[in-house]
Amino acid sequence: MRIYDIIAKKRDRFELTDEEIAFFVKGCTEKTIADYQTTALLMAIYLNGMTDREMITLTNEMAHSGELLDLSAIDGITADKHSTGGVGDKTTLIVAPIVASCGVRIAKLSGRGLGHTGGTVDKLESIDGFRVSLTPEEFIQQVNDIGICVTGQTGNLAPADKIIYGLRDATATVGSIPLIASSIMSKKLAAGAECIVLDVKVGSGAFMKTLDETKELSQKMIDIGKANGRKMAAVLSDMDTPLGKNIGNTLEVMEAVDVLKNGLQSDLTEVCVVLASNILALAKAVSLEEAEKQVRRSLSDGSAYETFKKLVRTQGGDTLLIENTDKFKKAAFCREVPSPADGYISSMNAETIGLASVALGAGRKTKEDTIDYTAGIVLEKKTGEAVKKGDVLARLYTNKDNCLDESERMFLSALDFSEEKPTEKPLIYDVMR
Amino acid sequence: MRIYDIIAKKRDRFELTDEEIAFFVKGCTEKTIADYQTTALLMAIYLNGMTDREMITLTNEMAHSGELLDLSAIDGITADKHSTGGVGDKTTLIVAPIVASCGVRIAKLSGRGLGHTGGTVDKLESIDGFRVSLTPEEFIQQVNDIGICVTGQTGNLAPADKIIYGLRDATATVGSIPLIASSIMSKKLAAGAECIVLDVKVGSGAFMKTLDETKELSQKMIDIGKANGRKMAAVLSDMDTPLGKNIGNTLEVMEAVDVLKNGLQSDLTEVCVVLASNILALAKAVSLEEAEKQVRRSLSDGSAYETFKKLVRTQGGDTLLIENTDKFKKAAFCREVPSPADGYISSMNAETIGLASVALGAGRKTKEDTIDYTAGIVLEKKTGEAVKKGDVLARLYTNKDNCLDESERMFLSALDFSEEKPTEKPLIYDVMR
Repeated sequence: MRIYDIIAKKRDRFELTDEEIAFFVKGCTEKTIADYQTTALLMAIYLNGMTDREMITLTNEMAHSGELLDLSAIDGITADKHSTGGVGDKTTLIVAPIVASCGVRIAKLSGRGLGHTGGTVDKLESIDGFRVSLTPEEFIQQVNDIGICVTGQTGNLAPADKIIYGLRDATATVGSIPLIASSIMSKKLAAGAECIVLDVKVGSGAFMKTLDETKELSQKMIDIGKANGRKMAAVLSDMDTPLGKNIGNTLEVMEAVDVLKNGLQSDLTEVCVVLASNILALAKAVSLEEAEKQVRRSLSDGSAYETFKKLVRTQGGDTLLIENTDKFKKAAFCREVPSPADGYISSMNAETIGLASVALGAGRKTKEDTIDYTAGIVLEKKTGEAVKKGDVLARLYTNKDNCLDESERMFLSALDFSEEKPTEKPLIYDVMR
Repeated sequence: MRIYDIIAKKRDRFELTDEEIAFFVKGCTEKTIADYQTTALLMAIYLNGMTDREMITLTNEMAHSGELLDLSAIDGITADKHSTGGVGDKTTLIVAPIVASCGVRIAKLSGRGLGHTGGTVDKLESIDGFRVSLTPEEFIQQVNDIGICVTGQTGNLAPADKIIYGLRDATATVGSIPLIASSIMSKKLAAGAECIVLDVKVGSGAFMKTLDETKELSQKMIDIGKANGRKMAAVLSDMDTPLGKNIGNTLEVMEAVDVLKNGLQSDLTEVCVVLASNILALAKAVSLEEAEKQVRRSLSDGSAYETFKKLVRTQGGDTLLIENTDKFKKAAFCREVPSPADGYISSMNAETIGLASVALGAGRKTKEDTIDYTAGIVLEKKTGEAVKKGDVLARLYTNKDNCLDESERMFLSALDFSEEKPTEKPLIYDVMR
């Protein structure tokens, strides 16, 4: 078998066999196939597509390219949640403790942020002492002990996906539905959980800009999971506007605690309730109504908050910060952004706001960048709200004052204003199973 | 400017600007663009095509990526001929001296063989002492002195094409008409001749398998040349069957001498007359009829033969071999291939026969292989001829007897037989200007 022939076959729109896909993934991982051959094939896949069978095979081969986490030593049913990434998306910090406090085992691997999207591992690391590098043994032990663990990637999971994703990222071949679906699902399959709920974002801050594409992607991922015996659901949620009001690592932990501890009601809370309810419904085989009841109880009776504190304590984090978020380190500089106009905020481009936050130091432009945990943006007004000229729209936090002008300019460029109140858009577009 | 955005633009079927194409070619040559990005773009070009303007810009940028041969020091009009490559194609050895003997300056750079196709440089090197590495100064001096020079690539011409072609060859992106046209024409433009006649092959032994594709490719190359002020013509000739009867380096020189010295009349002679007439007609601005008259006179009065000997002598080759081709070294082994059937030869797959010749040692599987100049195939029968079982179809020559069985098997697999005489196919499909 030769990679040349596989490239030519996909180039000419023929379906690849399982053996050909296995040969490709193995060659990629073992570096017997040159990167320049891989990217030619990836562009051919981007432009000519993949059948569902090809996509499922690709996913399985990538999942099996490295270690598979064996969660069988965990008592009880395991659940995982995956977000396709967004701005201000701190849902894992809230959903994971809710679900764990309701008796479902949360064995969750998370990633770091890149570009305009944040990552749960960075957010957790902004809590002094929080360890995000656990061995597979520590990971499983902790889930058995306290019912929840959230760590960075442990072991050598789906290395083929890492290689292929890196090449896609450099060659404008990220935005292919079969490639996105197989990339996400290969990691989820390797991570081993029985129930997987996907939070698939749609809108200006998401990979997928339209609802049709988002539905297609969600269906593909559900199909892949089910073909591998996993219980699957996908929540299609809005990412046209940032989620919640805080963007940036420490700031997002503070907002999550506000939901868990203080019962903050917001768009963020609603998305978390839907996600948590869907995980519980799948894992416990109960109705969504029953699941939602348990979720709201866990929030109101403090058990979700206590579980979050237990998670922080067990992974070495300073729980005093959680009990009193005023103790978190503050950024040296804060700038208030005044509204340039009277009227209503008719839209807030989430991607641009995410990049304005990166400019403040809250995120990474490249993988090698370091993060300023205290940097970020607090939105004082959101889409649909009435504003007067001069009203504070947002507060920008940073430790380097030379980025404030640029960040403010970017932030303002993300906003549109209208004279009339814009029609409200749904927060949750669909739940697919 | 970022290569990422250029890839994304071509991926999405937008037309690239001149600046973007220049950025790509420069980055390729200077290695500031990674090969894996180049190949993603090449696959996008393969699948989404290029406009004529993009193709002309790509050609010019590749032509200008290295040195440009300045032929202005040559007295008289300069002509170049290019074949897209075939099996048994020794036309340069015949056409170049004909044209030079008629007063047009032949300043010709040639290549080596690879895969099933041969190369003029290898054929000339099979003449003891023949030097194929001349400096640009020697090259120009020789054209001024004797009116003809045929050398391997001199100077650093179109290095971008070399890099891009190497990557196309490994990623199944060779067969794209704008990429083939720009690759060939970038080298021709850099080589500087005023008149360029292309011998574009069509059929089983050619890159282009159909006449429609061949016409399209020819038109594109003519357009590129004319856009750069060159006089252009393209002869579309058959390569379904090998050209002439000898395949292999020494063997092909011997057949060329047979045409030049002994007035051999064959398919080979006819193609050479058409090519030479078209070059003369372009270069001297005379009618094709007048040009053909001069060409046939040059063959019959021995002036083409004398010019060939002068070429060989000037470049250090042993003219005794040309005067008496029996003196050429012979291969150690010769096998006669008997016909397995009675009837007519209805087809001979030129590519397969070329590969049978490579198996004997006459060509290269990879660029690093060495060549056995004496190896090759002499066809005793060609398409359309009647044969009886046991008749000698061909003679295989080699210095390694362990390849004879495989080569014979390959050779026979290339042939089809029929009971009825097959309809004759044209040797020249078209001449385009």
